[in-house]
Amino acid sequence: MHLFRNDYSEGAAPQIMDAVAACGGEQSVGYTEGDAHCEHARELIREACGCPDAMVEFCIGGTSANVICLSGMLRDWEGAICTRDAHIIVHETGALAACGRTSLPTDDADGFLTPEAAERVYQFQMGTGRHMTRPGAIYITDTTELGGVWSRERFDAICDWARGHDLGIFLDGARLGSALTAPGNDLTLEHIASRVDAFYIGGTKNGMLMGEAIVICGHGEHAQRLREAFPYLQKERGGLLAKGFLLGAQFEAAFEAAKGSEALYWQLARHANECADRLRQGLVAAGLDLYGNSTSNQVFVTVSEDQEARLAQAAGCETFYVLADGRRVVRFVCSWATAAEDVDELLGLVRELA
Amino acid sequence: MHLFRNDYSEGAAPQIMDAVAACGGEQSVGYTEGDAHCEHARELIREACGCPDAMVEFCIGGTSANVICLSGMLRDWEGAICTRDAHIIVHETGALAACGRTSLPTDDADGFLTPEAAERVYQFQMGTGRHMTRPGAIYITDTTELGGVWSRERFDAICDWARGHDLGIFLDGARLGSALTAPGNDLTLEHIASRVDAFYIGGTKNGMLMGEAIVICGHGEHAQRLREAFPYLQKERGGLLAKGFLLGAQFEAAFEAAKGSEALYWQLARHANECADRLRQGLVAAGLDLYGNSTSNQVFVTVSEDQEARLAQAAGCETFYVLADGRRVVRFVCSWATAAEDVDELLGLVRELA
Amino acid sequence: MHLFRNDYSEGAAPQIMDAVAACGGEQSVGYTEGDAHCEHARELIREACGCPDAMVEFCIGGTSANVICLSGMLRDWEGAICTRDAHIIVHETGALAACGRTSLPTDDADGFLTPEAAERVYQFQMGTGRHMTRPGAIYITDTTELGGVWSRERFDAICDWARGHDLGIFLDGARLGSALTAPGNDLTLEHIASRVDAFYIGGTKNGMLMGEAIVICGHGEHAQRLREAFPYLQKERGGLLAKGFLLGAQFEAAFEAAKGSEALYWQLARHANECADRLRQGLVAAGLDLYGNSTSNQVFVTVSEDQEARLAQAAGCETFYVLADGRRVVRFVCSWATAAEDVDELLGLVRELA
Amino acid sequence: MHLFRNDYSEGAAPQIMDAVAACGGEQSVGYTEGDAHCEHARELIREACGCPDAMVEFCIGGTSANVICLSGMLRDWEGAICTRDAHIIVHETGALAACGRTSLPTDDADGFLTPEAAERVYQFQMGTGRHMTRPGAIYITDTTELGGVWSRERFDAICDWARGHDLGIFLDGARLGSALTAPGNDLTLEHIASRVDAFYIGGTKNGMLMGEAIVICGHGEHAQRLREAFPYLQKERGGLLAKGFLLGAQFEAAFEAAKGSEALYWQLARHANECADRLRQGLVAAGLDLYGNSTSNQVFVTVSEDQEARLAQAAGCETFYVLADGRRVVRFVCSWATAAEDVDELLGLVRELA
Repeated sequence: MHLFRNDYSEGAAPQIMDAVAACGGEQSVGYTEGDAHCEHARELIREACGCPDAMVEFCIGGTSANVICLSGMLRDWEGAICTRDAHIIVHETGALAACGRTSLPTDDADGFLTPEAAERVYQFQMGTGRHMTRPGAIYITDTTELGGVWSRERFDAICDWARGHDLGIFLDGARLGSALTAPGNDLTLEHIASRVDAFYIGGTKNGMLMGEAIVICGHGEHAQRLREAFPYLQKERGGLLAKGFLLGAQFEAAFEAAKGSEALYWQLARHANECADRLRQGLVAAGLDLYGNSTSNQVFVTVSEDQEARLAQAAGCETFYVLADGRRVVRFVCSWATAAEDVDELLGLVRELA
Repeated sequence: MHLFRNDYSEGAAPQIMDAVAACGGEQSVGYTEGDAHCEHARELIREACGCPDAMVEFCIGGTSANVICLSGMLRDWEGAICTRDAHIIVHETGALAACGRTSLPTDDADGFLTPEAAERVYQFQMGTGRHMTRPGAIYITDTTELGGVWSRERFDAICDWARGHDLGIFLDGARLGSALTAPGNDLTLEHIASRVDAFYIGGTKNGMLMGEAIVICGHGEHAQRLREAFPYLQKERGGLLAKGFLLGAQFEAAFEAAKGSEALYWQLARHANECADRLRQGLVAAGLDLYGNSTSNQVFVTVSEDQEARLAQAAGCETFYVLADGRRVVRFVCSWATAAEDVDELLGLVRELA
Repeated sequence: MHLFRNDYSEGAAPQIMDAVAACGGEQSVGYTEGDAHCEHARELIREACGCPDAMVEFCIGGTSANVICLSGMLRDWEGAICTRDAHIIVHETGALAACGRTSLPTDDADGFLTPEAAERVYQFQMGTGRHMTRPGAIYITDTTELGGVWSRERFDAICDWARGHDLGIFLDGARLGSALTAPGNDLTLEHIASRVDAFYIGGTKNGMLMGEAIVICGHGEHAQRLREAFPYLQKERGGLLAKGFLLGAQFEAAFEAAKGSEALYWQLARHANECADRLRQGLVAAGLDLYGNSTSNQVFVTVSEDQEARLAQAAGCETFYVLADGRRVVRFVCSWATAAEDVDELLGLVRELA
Repeated sequence: MHLFRNDYSEGAAPQIMDAVAACGGEQSVGYTEGDAHCEHARELIREACGCPDAMVEFCIGGTSANVICLSGMLRDWEGAICTRDAHIIVHETGALAACGRTSLPTDDADGFLTPEAAERVYQFQMGTGRHMTRPGAIYITDTTELGGVWSRERFDAICDWARGHDLGIFLDGARLGSALTAPGNDLTLEHIASRVDAFYIGGTKNGMLMGEAIVICGHGEHAQRLREAFPYLQKERGGLLAKGFLLGAQFEAAFEAAKGSEALYWQLARHANECADRLRQGLVAAGLDLYGNSTSNQVFVTVSEDQEARLAQAAGCETFYVLADGRRVVRFVCSWATAAEDVDELLGLVRELA
């Protein structure tokens, strides 16, 4: 059976693979520095963001992107306010602390950073002046760790709050494709680029071999600090690929739209979302309870311990939480490589187990 | 004209590309953790090293590999003795210092770390006891920054010296393929694995898309410290690839030998060396002076300022040094993608300029 | 009026000052290395701890002591489990993170780290394996941030838990004098030394000019790592005093007991505690509500906003919390320099305000 | 016999001790924050520097001062150009690297950083662009490690060079008292303050218990960065003293001049210099060879191995170098506590050994 373990279980989408393979016969300068693929991809992304003077850089992975951007924005004694389940806390082995910067978690429980919770952390951290880590930026992700999609209203509210406190704003877009093509989404690349200091457009989890496109779009103090730091930090923190043109070639393929059609990046993400929707509807129809608020390519559902074991074995799903009553929250993830038939086969098993 | 700028100017060798493309239709666990490609590649590499209990891990790039291995061997207050032109000093933007560890350069001028120079640094650093960074390991590279190939005698001498001072030994093998297939080389993977604590087998500069295979083969204190640290540091320092199976697939293709034939890894390296030899011979025949002691895939030659400009423009070579008399040392690099005809075309130009 | 702001508002106790002044006419080797005062003080402390092979070192301040000991015990990818109000979190500006190590806060609300809360953090941190910071040690303080004194039972319980999870144990004893002389205390230096890997005996907050005595008493993996690291880390992290003999002279004076009498260190602490007790009783008699569980030299009491202003202005107390109903928790601290008359004068003002 | 080991072998000068003792009966806010002693000392130092808007802060020791100032000026990917024997390299256990910043040593052999050597390092470091640590500041010391005193001409030359390259300028004044009172010195506090971004006035090596006064006098980018960072970094890097008023009280006593007389700080330094001069003259008269260019309170002289042993045993001198011919360079240091008679007694022994 197809595995729904995650969206980085497979290699690249065929169109992306073709673009990479085409590089085999070419020669380019390394390190993303001035090769035609990177330059073209930068242009396409600036255009998609409506931000002609954005600095666009290609990084090998999400942890690198987060560490470089946050350590480039934050000064040595500053930390980033984020939700307690933020990726930089629970999936990156203290990579940010390894650069001497810290995460300052709120008690937000659903993955959305709220002004109210952020304000509590802010007040707490400013409480003893120079004796505590000073908040220097906020870190948010779209989609959230639990697949939630930011509405424009929610997003503007936290951006307003951060600006009001002179904090930098960084958005981790590891699954930004899925977010911006999710049903009901009202955010756009342009709007994000107009509000944050920097963000990244995730490639790894949306059909590329690897790679994320970092967009430094702000012009204030935090963005300026990051613009100056980026070239050096990317090398120093290990996020620079020697054959950098391979990243450019992938993003070029992803963002170059044929006349009248959507760019591949959005097509791949939309497909994953549609499979996830199909799965969510089927699970509900089978009588299972969804968990959380995901409307994107991750599906969280509550199952029994027995069901958990069978599903993990057959479909590779992972367990996220054990609830107080002993029931399990498991996650299924759809990707560009998931087919409607794969979803239906999984639903068949689910119905059997239900 | 073909560019001789470096050995990471092109994508991957066709056989490597095929292996990566074949992953598109599969599903694997991520992060190099237990997928069939990584496991098989590990087995092949352990076998090639004659080291059945080596820990073999796949890392996204050379800077990551160096930083992870050295910071895993060294304690917070220790540094690595290396030559003054070592890659960790001149090409990695202080990545090691960013982990709080330092490089301790000797005055060795030709890229080979000698016991005599290392001893001088050692004595100097131990001079004020706890008031100075303590030497904790040596860092050597085969080939050296200038393309030199370590002889077994030279290699054993520095290993003996390091062991006698209880220092860890790490060998950066970014161009190890080229080194071990160079004419006159008498070192082997097995011998290296029997003497060092850890080393890596470079993929990026030998026809892969990206990736290095780290081999932790020692059993002493330094290797043990690194074995425990590795899984965490790899994530923390940003060297872990989500679609890690792609690295496994490439090394699998590189080290799987068809009956009676050499593994692809060595074939690719040998080819680059042969092109470089052809180039060296042609340059000498054209009356130019070689610089340094390279017998591997990098060719260093002395030219005038005029020649430098023409060659850089036509063949993408880089200038390494400006000599006291104004002459330039430029570098040509051959790779798996260089053809004998490319070399001959370059030599034609050289003869024209001479 | 005497200020009750904190226990480091005054210079040193006269006997300590005399010991420091006596050094003016002597000559000693610097850096605490082998001078007679440090050696004697080490001997006295080893004896007081019943731990003849303890490594005893003198450090300039508490933040340095915490950072050196925790970064010496923890590996780069590890963190220290502690309560959410721990000193290393709320008063040290991320000094631990600046060394690449992190704090892993529990939800314990009263300053005592409990096995239950620590276990929850432990399970959470181990949840994604190498993708999260690994717990490597626990950090506890006696007294706690809120003046609480650890009972032997409570202390043994958390030590048992930590040992059961192979974690290092570090106790911050900035106010250890006050803790071990508090009414009802049943812990001893000897018992602490028999259970933890390392702890420190605070001088700054108990009548010395500055300085803390670090005792590395354990023999397991964590203590061993710290023993090796200490001399280097103390210098590297900025905690080594050039005129180190001054620290030795102070601890010598503090721990040298005249026949039949208690050592000065305990006398000074006991005095501060007695003043605090007198204050607590007076506050309760005046109808005020104590806050928390302090039985040591810090007194926490709930007051109105008006009272807060008057008390801060007259007695220098600091506000710790604003409660939900708008009332304030303020802190009064007694020291070796506080007199019974000072307490009575403060109580007079309190009764006036009540 | 009096020991000439170093200038931090004794406690504080009597006038300094009195100032510290006088604090015993007072109460002050901690952490150098607003107490009367620190505020007054700040005023006196600003006046002495002719720099009314300088930020003046008190730090516990020289290593902390260096680390805080350099890491506050330098960005994560930058390093400080300094001589190869600089204190930050040979006496601070990699403290700067522990903050992720590096030292970039020149080949200057006599402790004076020259524009020519600095330019060579600068060109080398800029050679591979973002692939190398970028020079961000220069670090110089007056006196140098070998007791040399900067002339105004030499000082202006290196400052001009640094400004021309947009580098920050930091002067380590651990022995600035000795430098500015040395015979032939033509530098002044005012002139230094008018050229550098920051420097510190050393107390530890000039008769104080401990403590250095950091003066941030510049107004450019580097000084501005340090001004913002200082309060946080001082705590984070462990350089903040709880009883900070003790530092203020010492510098107050040192810089408060009675009518018509020089401030104590200069008197103490001048005395040490005079003893050193007496010693230098006596050594030359006894037929010994001075080593290097010291005109300050450190005396370097060449002796035989036998003489070295006797002198070390009797006068506590340390060996700095073993020369090629087997002769030794030993150092004698004079301090505020050295008497002319002590010098004469040492010279008697020297004549005996000669």
